[in-house]
This record gives sequence, structure tokens and C-alpha cells, in this order.
Amino acid sequence: MGAEAKTSLPCFELERILYEDPRAKSVNLLGQCEHQGERVPALLLMEKTHFTPAFLASLQQGLEHTFSHLEQIGQNDIYTWVFGWTSDQVHTDAHTKMSLICPANSDLIAKYSAPERRMIIETPHMYETVTKPWIESLPASKVTWVHNILNGESERESVLYNDEDPKTGFVLVPDLKWDRRTLSSLYMVAIVRDGSLTNMRDLTKDHIPLLRKIQKAGAQIAHEKYGLPAPSADGSSSSLRCFLHYMPTYFHLHVHLMSANFTTHPGALVGQAQLVDDVISLLELGVDFRQRTIGYALADGHKLLAALQQAGFAT
Amino acid sequence: MGAEAKTSLPCFELERILYEDPRAKSVNLLGQCEHQGERVPALLLMEKTHFTPAFLASLQQGLEHTFSHLEQIGQNDIYTWVFGWTSDQVHTDAHTKMSLICPANSDLIAKYSAPERRMIIETPHMYETVTKPWIESLPASKVTWVHNILNGESERESVLYNDEDPKTGFVLVPDLKWDRRTLSSLYMVAIVRDGSLTNMRDLTKDHIPLLRKIQKAGAQIAHEKYGLPAPSADGSSSSLRCFLHYMPTYFHLHVHLMSANFTTHPGALVGQAQLVDDVISLLELGVDFRQRTIGYALADGHKLLAALQQAGFAT
Repeated sequence: MGAEAKTSLPCFELERILYEDPRAKSVNLLGQCEHQGERVPALLLMEKTHFTPAFLASLQQGLEHTFSHLEQIGQNDIYTWVFGWTSDQVHTDAHTKMSLICPANSDLIAKYSAPERRMIIETPHMYETVTKPWIESLPASKVTWVHNILNGESERESVLYNDEDPKTGFVLVPDLKWDRRTLSSLYMVAIVRDGSLTNMRDLTKDHIPLLRKIQKAGAQIAHEKYGLPAPSADGSSSSLRCFLHYMPTYFHLHVHLMSANFTTHPGALVGQAQLVDDVISLLELGVDFRQRTIGYALADGHKLLAALQQAGFAT
Repeated sequence: MGAEAKTSLPCFELERILYEDPRAKSVNLLGQCEHQGERVPALLLMEKTHFTPAFLASLQQGLEHTFSHLEQIGQNDIYTWVFGWTSDQVHTDAHTKMSLICPANSDLIAKYSAPERRMIIETPHMYETVTKPWIESLPASKVTWVHNILNGESERESVLYNDEDPKTGFVLVPDLKWDRRTLSSLYMVAIVRDGSLTNMRDLTKDHIPLLRKIQKAGAQIAHEKYGLPAPSADGSSSSLRCFLHYMPTYFHLHVHLMSANFTTHPGALVGQAQLVDDVISLLELGVDFRQRTIGYALADGHKLLAALQQAGFAT
């Protein structure tokens, strides 16, 4: 631990709470720190640590070994509720993980503040007059990284499946957020080769074989490489939750393939995600995706929200 | 603390981990306890506590006051990562909440074990031959509580909005899981009066006015009673994420109305939830909901899954 850390850390002075997630036991705090002789804005991100394997192993020796103090707070029939205090001895696991960001500019402060979200009910008219022109105005450089994956210039060693057909081909890679080990949070992404497809509204009946190929390859890799249960032969069940984002964060069509057991990922929320099987069925039934009204959540500060507001929508 | 608690608690002997949620910092453990002179199965559910207001207030006095020990684990540019150990003094907040269930029968053990989920890709044929008959076979008593709410026999004091029309009427109540205070997790349910509607597949164009009335009343209550932003006059944006469950947990049509900011609720996942605005749009476009193939997740042990498997699906 350097001398700077010793002096810079305890100096944090709390101003206010920017965001709390009681389920994740995390809190983002805004305050001030001393930096080069001045008081500057600083962010302190705190999160309780998870139970470690060493902690769980220590339970073999009984609760009184693991906890320095236990307090019963209730009892009813077969149920007993207890609070526990672990030891503060340094050799045990830390209670809290913290990240200090100092100095913190306004972008960083906004990033770690509670985002206000609203639902956008996007009519075909809103799509044609605002969303589509906005997508087309984005610089091509935003998806350079996608082309690097498709060309084999990046993440070549990560590719799980590669279909080179320029129209119905795609590359399947593990999602960056996946640790590539935990089966219950298995998360892969299929990036299609056809660069004319920017988002779900571009899909027509012609793309059903592409979507089916992606689901089939994803199920095969999930089963053969990672050991997830195979889908049923008649297609009536699967271990993967496959979906498209609408609105996506980048405009080169891609499919998310996630373990059906991964139920805590906010990107899989309704109003953000559309199930591939539902999409295929609607295309088969003749639904024109340019004529659908589609709801999705946008966070304050999203540039599409600004474009919609400028056009008189989503005031 | 009774004498029984003192002796019954530390006796827990760990056998194995049934389920872990690293994001929620929770773990469900199976073990044994002494009960009436015998060793019996017991469950110990552990969860880290969230940061309390008192803890956050103590930060005003600096990190070194709140933590008995701090350890820097990394530093890069404006970022510093730190582990912290809080004091083990009894007057501070507990580190861990625990529930002990003893003795625990096999149903309880299954309930707290990691559920394996799979996606069911339900074709119209599967619905007509398995799901619909299964829904119709459920005893009417399963929705007695729903009728009690509709009749005003239960939760009368909770009703937020009451439309008595037998065909297009509904009752709007706070969801039981909502604390009725936290705006970011606002969660209401609208239960329709028309008992012939069991689930989303029963909806036709005729029900669009019902769905619109529910969304309108929900937005009004969310705004006037709870202070959420009002929807835009042209319907292009809203503060509520409104959805139907498919598969629902009970078969009397109901709509979930949730703050758009509530992004951690697993019931709002794609493959479980269908956005009401999307549903309205598809009905307007002439989609026959009995002819759609719809995907949804079912957990092992769900009775519908058993019915589907018995019919040769979802093997």
C-alpha cells in the first residue's frame, strides 16, 4: 500500500448517495477527496463481498466458529431467523469491496447515478421519421469492432462457431460479460455477416433460416462444448433463452444466447429483449416488423431519447 | 435469545451448497441439525446484509472510522480498488442474515435448491392438446383469492382503482411484493373482471380497449398517487413497464404494471413477460394469439412441464 493510498483513501467525504441496489447490496456514493492540494469530486462504489469458498468451508466447524456473535431475531415453528457478525480479524474475508474514482468528472458521476428510465412506445411513424435516420447517422466506426470479429482480426481465438455464408452466415462468440465457466450464466452472442441488417425491424420471412441456424448452432455448442442439456428433437424445448435487443446498443444485427437459468441479467428484460422463437413465429404469421408498434426502455441521457424529444415525441 | 436457540443454532452441520447467487450475495445450504435428540435435515439460508442508513451516515466521519481495516488491492490512473473490514463490535450492523429451517422436508429442500429452467417453445398444437386442457383441469379454488379481491371481500383497503364493468372492468392493486413506498420498484397488478380470460392466448382485437383502459388507469395512479412522471399525451412514452406473464402463475387474466426503473425483477424477463404495447400492436395487426408459437421458461418440477413431457414434448 503506497503512502498516497493511505492518505487519499480515508479523506473521502460523503456528500450524497447516487444509487443503491439493495438486492446486490451495492451503493454508489458521491463525495470529495483531496487531490493535488485541492478538494475534488470523487466517487466511492461500495459492494458487499459474496461468501467465499473458505467462508463456506469454515461452516463445517459450526456457526460459532465462523461468527463471533449470533443473535436470534425470531422463531416460528420450523423457522429461525438469526443475525451474524463475522470476525474483523484481518486474516478473514473482507466485508466490502470498494472502488474509489478520484477525480470524477460529470460523465462518470452520471454513469454511476440512478438512471431514470422511460418506456418508448415506438410507432412505425416514429421509427421511419426519427429512429431509422438516427441509426443511419451513426458513424460506421462504431461497429469497427464487429467487423474485426467477422474478419477474424479480433477475438479469433474466442470464436465458437463460424458460418461464412455472406447472407445467412454468422460468428458465435462468448459474450464479454461471461466468465466462460459458470454454466448457469452461460452467455454467447451471434453476430450475423449480412451488414444490411441493423436491427429487428429489418427482419423479414427471408431471415427465418438465418435465425434458425443461429439457434441450432448455439444449442449445439452449449450442449457439446459446455454440457448444457440438448434441445428436444421436435424443437419443443431448449436450454437457451435466445433473444434480440430492441433497442440494441449497436446497430449490426446480433442474437443473444443465454442459459435459461440465467435470470438476473437486466439485458434480458421485457421491453429490451424479444425472444427469437416469438420473432420467428410472428414472421411466419406474416407480421411486417416495420409496421409493428414496439415498446422499449431508454435511460435518460440516451442519444435516441434526445432525437425523439427533438422531434416532439416522448416529451 | 432462548436456551433452545443457543443450542440449536450452532449445531448446524454443513453437507452441501444447494444454490448460490453471487450477485445477491446469498447462498442456500443443506445440512443437519439436532432435533428432539435426532439428526435431521436442515436448511440454512444465508444472505449478506445491505448497507444500512446508519452505516452510510458513519461515512461522514471518514472511511477509517467506519472500517477497522482497509487494504488497497490496485490502483490505475483515477481508479483505486480497496477491501474493507468493518468492526465486529456488536453495536454495529450484522454482516449476515440467516434463516434456519429445521427439520426440512424434501419439498423445502427442492424449493431452495437451484431450479433448472428450460425454454418451452409452445406451438398452437401444444397449447390446444396439453396446455389448455391442463389449465382447465386446475381447481377453481386456486383463484378464490382473485375473486375475493374482485368482490371486495379481501384487500378492499388496498384497491387503487376499480372499474366495475363486467366485460372491460378490472381492479388495480399494489403487488404484494411491493413495499408501497419505494418509487423505483413500484409494482401494481390489474386483475380483469372477465373471468373467461385465463391467459394471453385468450386475447383478441375486442380486448384492446380493456388493455388500454388498464394502462391508462395505471399511469394515472402512478402519476397522481405516487408521483411518477405522467405519460406523454400522444402515448409515445410512459413511466410504466406493463406486461402480461406467459406462462402466468395463476389463470385469471392480469396485467403487471411496474416502474420502468425496476430492472431487477426476474418476473419481467423475456420468455416470461410480454409487453402490453407489443401485444396491443400485434392484435391490431391481426395476429391470432391462438396461432402464435410462444416461448417461455419453466422450472423443473412445474406441473405444466410434467404434462408436456407426458404428452411427448419437452423430453
